[in-house]
Amino acid sequence: MSRLTPPAAVIERVDAALAESLSAAADSFAAISPSAAELIDPIREFTAKGKRIRALITWWGFELGGGDAAAEPGIARVAASVELLHAAALIHDDIIDDSDTRRGRPAVHAAHRTAHAERGWAGDAALYGTGAGIIAGDLCLSLSEEIYSSAGLSRLAEPEAVRRHDDFRREVMVGQFLDIRLQAAPVEPADLIDRAREVLTYKSAKYSVEHPLLLGAALGGADEDQLAALAEFGLPLGRAFQLRDDELGVFGDPQVTGKPAGDDLRQGKKTVLVGSALTRLDPDTAAWFAERLGAADLTDAEIGRMEELLISTGALAAFEEQIDAETTRAESALAELPLAATDRALLEAYILRLTRRAA
Amino acid sequence: MSRLTPPAAVIERVDAALAESLSAAADSFAAISPSAAELIDPIREFTAKGKRIRALITWWGFELGGGDAAAEPGIARVAASVELLHAAALIHDDIIDDSDTRRGRPAVHAAHRTAHAERGWAGDAALYGTGAGIIAGDLCLSLSEEIYSSAGLSRLAEPEAVRRHDDFRREVMVGQFLDIRLQAAPVEPADLIDRAREVLTYKSAKYSVEHPLLLGAALGGADEDQLAALAEFGLPLGRAFQLRDDELGVFGDPQVTGKPAGDDLRQGKKTVLVGSALTRLDPDTAAWFAERLGAADLTDAEIGRMEELLISTGALAAFEEQIDAETTRAESALAELPLAATDRALLEAYILRLTRRAA
Repeated sequence: MSRLTPPAAVIERVDAALAESLSAAADSFAAISPSAAELIDPIREFTAKGKRIRALITWWGFELGGGDAAAEPGIARVAASVELLHAAALIHDDIIDDSDTRRGRPAVHAAHRTAHAERGWAGDAALYGTGAGIIAGDLCLSLSEEIYSSAGLSRLAEPEAVRRHDDFRREVMVGQFLDIRLQAAPVEPADLIDRAREVLTYKSAKYSVEHPLLLGAALGGADEDQLAALAEFGLPLGRAFQLRDDELGVFGDPQVTGKPAGDDLRQGKKTVLVGSALTRLDPDTAAWFAERLGAADLTDAEIGRMEELLISTGALAAFEEQIDAETTRAESALAELPLAATDRALLEAYILRLTRRAA
Repeated sequence: MSRLTPPAAVIERVDAALAESLSAAADSFAAISPSAAELIDPIREFTAKGKRIRALITWWGFELGGGDAAAEPGIARVAASVELLHAAALIHDDIIDDSDTRRGRPAVHAAHRTAHAERGWAGDAALYGTGAGIIAGDLCLSLSEEIYSSAGLSRLAEPEAVRRHDDFRREVMVGQFLDIRLQAAPVEPADLIDRAREVLTYKSAKYSVEHPLLLGAALGGADEDQLAALAEFGLPLGRAFQLRDDELGVFGDPQVTGKPAGDDLRQGKKTVLVGSALTRLDPDTAAWFAERLGAADLTDAEIGRMEELLISTGALAAFEEQIDAETTRAESALAELPLAATDRALLEAYILRLTRRAA
């Protein structure tokens, strides 16, 4: 018998839970001041979009752990709370990275900055945008907690679920910090790969896949063995997901990703891929690569040369092998899980969606 | 029989709960990466100080509501979680206000910015400081949730407590937003007082006194009537507390407050006091006051003139009357509460401490 709810049905219910939560917040804000709508409306718009990857994985984790979504409809609120945590992370990330666009639209802080500038308000528009964006992210974090704690699931207060929820939030913040630190501080090429893998693990692999999967599973009633088996599946899948992201950041098709060609090279991101190239290059070329990476005056020709070096050194091929190895690990772990055939097929298809994607 | 724990004993136990929580976080971070200490250490330092006003009020609210701190020692964790929420608010507030010092030391984001600059790291030091400060505040929010949800109090999941906790976090963020918006957007002098009172109510009065008091009380088992009676005490006390803060922001002794003379005038803060002056001035002088308020080239002589106008128009005297009126309301509400004589004396002394302070 099949147990996993199909993606479209999950997303529909998560979207409904999100909309309900944000409407309730908007109503309570309207009672405080009409101006408060300026805070909540951009959040509603922002959270209306998104691939809902983490919500879906949370939901499926719940079902894989033995939870029954029909008996405990509050799982929709838990999954929505994960999306609100993600919204907070993205809204703050765009300030941290000084990035003005997200999902093809102005980032939340950029929208506030523009509103300030267009209305000719007093003070510095950029500072206002940063401030409003910080508050908007904080509010998403708070609303995430609200919707989580009121989800009404039977295992919400069980130590395993509490611990998973705590690790989820806490580790992504450490990952975020390790990321900005890695981008700023000098690092030996030999260390770069390890440091970049740390960031990849905590900022993305665990956060995007392993944590939502295990949080859901703990709430669904999974025992220790089941949680360990799911971690065997979730962590390599998360790694493969993020490694693909890093590859698309350099070699992605701008038409599909919506980002400029070689965007991560332009931004100087120190990724596993870049680290792998630096260790393979002769010292002079490595020094050139490291120095020009992220340079303000980096030319298209230089980006082209960097891309060629990533290929000619074999760094890209080795990187693809890593993605394949992590994907294979995830697939093997999946094969060990006791699943109905339709559920297995659904998860196999989702693995491909996360690891073979072009955007 | 006396019920309220004396301040020193409360603070000792809250400090211990805070230290324990942050040590546990530091340990878990050390397992991830040695660099993560750079994120947690400034937070530990930052939270080691503070007046613990909100922790104390939370604790006393619990006891006033009928809670027994000996039977439920987890109240120390709840009070510590309130302090961590406050730490998050202050860390983010200093970025939002572009303020480099806090409690006589560098603000968290400023310390990260300085560390970046001193080590000659890559990229923009200010952006790094902002990013690290945002993440530090987010982490405090998360740790606040962790310590709260694991406090183990018997009424943690009761709807009244959940609702109070939700309102607490949510409304301070709305207050923060209304504050930056008020400072930025043009506002008619006639409206300024109402808008400034909105900010004062949500960003400070409710957040600093009413919410912690009622959260504690709900966790202690207070019924609806008791909660209403405590609100009658907490909201005016919170208002008087913040009104005094606004007065000290203009007339405070720099030697005692640690802030420059006339700091709020320099920063152009639109407070109830300023609003009151503007409505009392003749149009030309009001226009001058409004225009020069917060001007980058504001002189000491101009600040002196503004202070004189606040006095000569009667705005300051009316403002003092407001503080007295709110204080009297709080005292009258306190007189209605059924309390042991020693508890009443303790709370009366604390009212004075919050409303008659010089810093």
